[in-house]
Amino acid sequence: MFLINGQPGESISANNRGLHYGDGAFETIAIHNQAPLCWEDHYLRLNYGCERLGMACPPSELLLGEASRLLTDKERCVLKIIVTRGEGGRGYRAKQGVEPCRILGRYPWPDYPVQYATDGVRIRICRTRLVRNPALAGIKHLNRLEQVIARNEWQDDSIAEGLMLDSHDKLIEGTMSNLFLIKGQKLLTPELTECGIEGIIRKNVLNLAGNIGLDAVVCEISKDELNTADEVFLCNSIIGIWPVRHIEKREFAPGIYTEKVRQQLLKKNIILV
Amino acid sequence: MFLINGQPGESISANNRGLHYGDGAFETIAIHNQAPLCWEDHYLRLNYGCERLGMACPPSELLLGEASRLLTDKERCVLKIIVTRGEGGRGYRAKQGVEPCRILGRYPWPDYPVQYATDGVRIRICRTRLVRNPALAGIKHLNRLEQVIARNEWQDDSIAEGLMLDSHDKLIEGTMSNLFLIKGQKLLTPELTECGIEGIIRKNVLNLAGNIGLDAVVCEISKDELNTADEVFLCNSIIGIWPVRHIEKREFAPGIYTEKVRQQLLKKNIILV
Repeated sequence: MFLINGQPGESISANNRGLHYGDGAFETIAIHNQAPLCWEDHYLRLNYGCERLGMACPPSELLLGEASRLLTDKERCVLKIIVTRGEGGRGYRAKQGVEPCRILGRYPWPDYPVQYATDGVRIRICRTRLVRNPALAGIKHLNRLEQVIARNEWQDDSIAEGLMLDSHDKLIEGTMSNLFLIKGQKLLTPELTECGIEGIIRKNVLNLAGNIGLDAVVCEISKDELNTADEVFLCNSIIGIWPVRHIEKREFAPGIYTEKVRQQLLKKNIILV
Repeated sequence: MFLINGQPGESISANNRGLHYGDGAFETIAIHNQAPLCWEDHYLRLNYGCERLGMACPPSELLLGEASRLLTDKERCVLKIIVTRGEGGRGYRAKQGVEPCRILGRYPWPDYPVQYATDGVRIRICRTRLVRNPALAGIKHLNRLEQVIARNEWQDDSIAEGLMLDSHDKLIEGTMSNLFLIKGQKLLTPELTECGIEGIIRKNVLNLAGNIGLDAVVCEISKDELNTADEVFLCNSIIGIWPVRHIEKREFAPGIYTEKVRQQLLKKNIILV
C-alpha cells in the first residue's frame, strides 16, 4: 500500500527520475503502535541526502502526517519513504521548478527467524566490492546495484547476510546492515567516509557504547581483523542486532557485549527485536 | 507515450525494482521513418547488460514489435527502452520467477541547435568523477547519479556538455556522450574497461576510422592530452557528432577529420544530424 504525493495509489509516472536514474533518496523505518522509531534520525538523513542531491526534501510534518494515514493498524510494520527528483525522464539535467515526488510504502514486518537476534546468524563475504565514491558517500540514494549484485551472489537461505569490502580490502558493511567488531573493551566499526551508509542503529550503538563499558572506535578495518575479534554483530533499523556466529569457516561464541548492546537498544525503543 | 509490458500507459508499479534500486538497463535509440537506427547494436548491448545483471532480456522481435506500435508517425523521434528486474520493492534479493518489466517510451527529437553538429560546441570539465567500478563497467544500467550530479554542475546554456574524468585523472567520456581526440593521423578514444559506457556511435566511429585514413587507438588518455589534440569531438546516438570548439579556455579550429567522420556516419544511416 502506497501514498504517492499524498494520494493512495499503486503506481508512479513512467517518467519519474527515480526510475530513469535512481535520482533520489530513501529511508526504511521500523513502525510500532503506528509510530516510526527514531524518526528524527531518519528525517535528518533523508533531508541531508536530498540536500546533497540538490533537491528539496518534503517537510517532516508532511511525511509524518502521510505516514499516519498509512499506519492504520497496531501491528509492527515497515515504512519505506522514497523521495525522487520527480518528473523528467530523458536528459540528466534536472528541470528547474519540478516538484520532488514522495512515495510512502507500508510493508509487512519481515519474517526473519527470531533466533537470528538471540542466537546469531551465519554470514559470508561477498565478491562484489563497494567502490569508494565521495560524490555519493553518505547519501542513502537509489543507486543500489552494488548491493543488488552482492545480495544475489548467494541463494543459500541459511546464510543471513553478506559482508562487503571496498576495493582496498577494507571491511565496510553488510549488503543491508552495518558491521561492528568487539575486541577486548573496544567496539570497532568501519569508517564510512568513502562509501557505505551511516545507519541509524549504528549511530545509536556508537552513542551507548560508554554505558556498557566499551570504547567506541570508528576506523579502517581490514578483513583479517575478523579473525581476532571477540564478537561480531550486524545492525539495521529492521533486523535490530544480529550477533554473528559463523563467517565462512570462522566461528564465534555467543557475545556478551552484543547482547548488552541489544538490550540497551530495546530498552530505549530504538529497535523492536 | 509509453508501452509498459506491451500495454499503453503512463505509469509503472511503485514496487518496481527500477525505482527502488535502479535495478535494470536501458537504451536510447534514434528513430527515423519509424525504424530504429543501429538496432542490432542497441539490442546486443541491452542483452549483455541484462545478462550481467542476471535477468532475462525480452526478445529482440518482441521489443521491435512494441516499438513499431509506438512509432506511428514518420517524424524523427527518440525511443527509450528500459528493462528492469520487475516487481519486488523491499529487499535487495531478487525474487525467483519474477518477470522483467519492459518500458518503451517515445520522446520528441531534442531541439539542439543544428550548428552544434556543423560548427561545434563549447564544453567544460566536470568536478564530479566517474568511479572505477568493474562490477558495473560496460552495463548501460539505471544507476546514473554520477551523470545527474555532473550534469547539474552547470546551468549555463551556452555549454553543451561536460567531460568526466575518473579518480586517476584520466578522461573517460561526457555526461551523455563518448569522447574522441584526433592527433595527426591517430583517432584516440578512452579505454572503458573500468567505467564509462561503450556507445554505439563510438563503436561505429572506431570501425570506420580506416576508411578516412585514421588509425584508431583505444587507450588511457590524461586530461593534459586535450592541450595537444588537433581535433576533439563527442558522439552519441541522438546528437550524432559534435565537434568541440572550446573546452574552458582552450580553442579548437573546425575539424576536417571530424567532419569526415560525421559525413561517413550520415551516409551509412548511423546518425541523423
